[in-house]
Amino acid sequence: MNGAESLVRTLVSGGVNLCFANPGTSEMHFVAALDRVEGMRCVLCLYEGVVTGAADVYYRMTGNPASTLLHLGPGLGNGLANLHNAKKARSGVVNIVGEHAGYHIKHDAPLTSDIEGVARPMSDWVRTALSAKTVAADGALAIQAAREPPGRVATLILPADTAWGDADGPATVQPPVARRPVAGDAISAGARALTCGELALLFLGGVAMRGRALELAGRIAAKTGCRLMSEFNNARMESGAGRVPAPRLPYVVDVALAALKGVRQLVLVGAKTPVSFFAYPGKPSVLIPDDCAVTKVAGAESDLEGALEALADTLDARHTPPAVASLARPALPTGEVTVEGITAVLVALLPEHAVVIDESITTGRGFATAMSGAAPHDWLTIVGGSIGWGLPAAVGAAIGAPDRKVIALEGDGSAMYTLQALWSMARENLDVTVIVFANRSYKILHTELANVGAGTPGRRANDMLTLDRPNLDWVDLAKGFGVEAGRAASLEEFAQQFRRGLARRGPYLVELVI
Amino acid sequence: MNGAESLVRTLVSGGVNLCFANPGTSEMHFVAALDRVEGMRCVLCLYEGVVTGAADVYYRMTGNPASTLLHLGPGLGNGLANLHNAKKARSGVVNIVGEHAGYHIKHDAPLTSDIEGVARPMSDWVRTALSAKTVAADGALAIQAAREPPGRVATLILPADTAWGDADGPATVQPPVARRPVAGDAISAGARALTCGELALLFLGGVAMRGRALELAGRIAAKTGCRLMSEFNNARMESGAGRVPAPRLPYVVDVALAALKGVRQLVLVGAKTPVSFFAYPGKPSVLIPDDCAVTKVAGAESDLEGALEALADTLDARHTPPAVASLARPALPTGEVTVEGITAVLVALLPEHAVVIDESITTGRGFATAMSGAAPHDWLTIVGGSIGWGLPAAVGAAIGAPDRKVIALEGDGSAMYTLQALWSMARENLDVTVIVFANRSYKILHTELANVGAGTPGRRANDMLTLDRPNLDWVDLAKGFGVEAGRAASLEEFAQQFRRGLARRGPYLVELVI
Repeated sequence: MNGAESLVRTLVSGGVNLCFANPGTSEMHFVAALDRVEGMRCVLCLYEGVVTGAADVYYRMTGNPASTLLHLGPGLGNGLANLHNAKKARSGVVNIVGEHAGYHIKHDAPLTSDIEGVARPMSDWVRTALSAKTVAADGALAIQAAREPPGRVATLILPADTAWGDADGPATVQPPVARRPVAGDAISAGARALTCGELALLFLGGVAMRGRALELAGRIAAKTGCRLMSEFNNARMESGAGRVPAPRLPYVVDVALAALKGVRQLVLVGAKTPVSFFAYPGKPSVLIPDDCAVTKVAGAESDLEGALEALADTLDARHTPPAVASLARPALPTGEVTVEGITAVLVALLPEHAVVIDESITTGRGFATAMSGAAPHDWLTIVGGSIGWGLPAAVGAAIGAPDRKVIALEGDGSAMYTLQALWSMARENLDVTVIVFANRSYKILHTELANVGAGTPGRRANDMLTLDRPNLDWVDLAKGFGVEAGRAASLEEFAQQFRRGLARRGPYLVELVI
Repeated sequence: MNGAESLVRTLVSGGVNLCFANPGTSEMHFVAALDRVEGMRCVLCLYEGVVTGAADVYYRMTGNPASTLLHLGPGLGNGLANLHNAKKARSGVVNIVGEHAGYHIKHDAPLTSDIEGVARPMSDWVRTALSAKTVAADGALAIQAAREPPGRVATLILPADTAWGDADGPATVQPPVARRPVAGDAISAGARALTCGELALLFLGGVAMRGRALELAGRIAAKTGCRLMSEFNNARMESGAGRVPAPRLPYVVDVALAALKGVRQLVLVGAKTPVSFFAYPGKPSVLIPDDCAVTKVAGAESDLEGALEALADTLDARHTPPAVASLARPALPTGEVTVEGITAVLVALLPEHAVVIDESITTGRGFATAMSGAAPHDWLTIVGGSIGWGLPAAVGAAIGAPDRKVIALEGDGSAMYTLQALWSMARENLDVTVIVFANRSYKILHTELANVGAGTPGRRANDMLTLDRPNLDWVDLAKGFGVEAGRAASLEEFAQQFRRGLARRGPYLVELVI
């Protein structure tokens, strides 16, 4: 058995049985080992940003890391932006990055680069394998690192000779470490803050936005009268009918400041003190009022459900019924395309237990909050803020949750970064409906230009913000990747096209012209 | 005047008057300054890999750096692979990378990352601007760094508050440093090696493959009887009728070893001792025979033309007529698509002074050498070996050499990485004919799998090497980006489609099904 096979066997026996791959020469022994080892599903992606974005969201859906297979420093570079998103989302990922054979590196062949240097900014754990005999043990450590709560990006660099040299066999992967329990004094402090009589906000992040944790937060809010909100970005939040609404913090600074006005007690469970996404001249970075006290009950790595349970017990809220959203499907609107109309179509037609990938940027800023009346669903956002995440995310979601409909809401500018994901959707027949909001513009930047005090764009600046001349044709693009597609230019056409996507089991793309 | 405007004015007054851009919020003041400063052409690219690949090749064509405009660490990450190629090609590039305002970084907003860490592996020079007052001076230093011979990748990180704060005005850029003259003893050593009576190879790289330098190398070869070859990859080499042929070192190790067999004296001018692209078990990394002496006359940063002139003078070769290639346009072949047939069509139809971007990988391995009979042209290859370079390269070539036809020869797998470049070709109406060799496979990897001793691919491995199920439709993809396109499945169709591209002034894509 060679090193590559010992590594693949270690991954599979350690429960990492999915590999998103874009391999090259230095990874050929790993690829060849796939034929000798049962149990590893390998999904080819035609660009590394697809590989890493899919791995991010596969973890968000399953809680189990996927591995990636990337080709040397530049291949890892192509995957960095979505590893950034994965790291910020606290997703566990096991990157396997090929490298030249150890003895070859000194010759500075064309593809030689400082791979550890490329890896470090977007990884929590980096190691270069030193021999074929030890690469399996390195792989086991990488899996353990990726599973460290709440999830980490681990990058193992695999020199070609450690892949092709003789190995002894797979290594044993230690069981995952449990999430850290929250100390009683943090619980007591949280309970005091929520009941001191001042306007209190229970601010949720991470897995506190799911399942029993979210329900417990709702009971606490019902009992204490505190407000509930969630971070602007969340790796995966449950929403819709029957769920406790915890609206996202607004993106726009002034709107966020208004939403937080008057709050005197901020209680953090899995969230951080809210800060603005960007800095703007004359506006604050920290968004809570100056006189607001902050109580951190639990960080993202902690046992958030346990913390909320203890908090509920302290507050005698365990049996207080939470306020939950009711199903409120609007009538299907018609006529000209408006954001309100799009929202109504989405709320009306969203299937039960859909997984919604939200990279809708400007168009979709209000979607998530409005979706509380829709059927119950999961809502996923770009936690690291780097666009080009959504289509790869949809690949990872569809593979991680094969029995659920995935709906990717995409700005046209964002979708363009990693559109190669469409091909993997076609090849794997993934059950994804993609909606591209074609405003033919980096529309967010028009507002941002004004927000940072840079005025109104002239001709040259405007050329940097628009995607017209020529317009992108998303129907042709989708067809080029083997994905069926249709265009909508009115709300009734949008509803019809969306239904067409929902009706099939497989990928479909709707270009909605705005 | 704010910092951003002082920087843009510094760039323009320093001769950097082209900016390939994919901006975000933190770069809005730079974008706004474009409207206030005359003389900066800004080209929007819809992905950062397009930005950096275009900047690489703009330098190769003009000898003058372009600037890039990139959005924070992830945006720079998306551009790293082609910065790797630029660095290896010794191209001068001035990267401007936006960053959060200095006071905002500590708040760890979503897009916060270690930008210097991301920049360092693929940059020769990295600096973060510290104030609006000094950012112009930093920009001047970045330009100087990018112009240091033979060309370097300089990355200036621009925190938003250094862009929007008050500045004093532009800074003065020092004139470029000249290439280093080669010492007389290196010339004498080279002359001795070439005339000692042993089989000698004059091995050329960098700008030694152009103009008078290449001609001088030809005179030296004619005088001494030495052989001439060039590195496998060259930033830009002149070839075709009337030029001195200096065939590229073959890619495949065994073929390269055979080509270098018996060479006892290797004389380097702008080139390095040849090494294999990858390591293969049981095969050498260094490709020259063990008993071959190496004489380095001049490194890539030196005055290569001066060195060859001095060498020619020492050898009394200045007036020896060089052997040059003759125009030998074959008849247009017909019938089934073969590599020989494709080559013949290219040789027959290549227009004078075309700029050929070669990312044809497996299909095109023999193209460059065969092109000596074609009309005179420039031939550019991926010096850093990271695929996804060719289409962005064509953008940079067409802007850098607007009066010349650009022909991009693309493997389908490679073209897929950065296909967003097609849109910039359409928007700027760039005179590029793209030929995609659609073998629907990472064909190189089939051979590489065997070469590294990993055997024959089974089903799962084969799935990682093929681009079928579904086939990519390059005609639809091109149309989606606003580029006209046609498909060819025979040699006569290929000639017809290629002619169609050549006949227009603007972009056209030919999908050649292989």
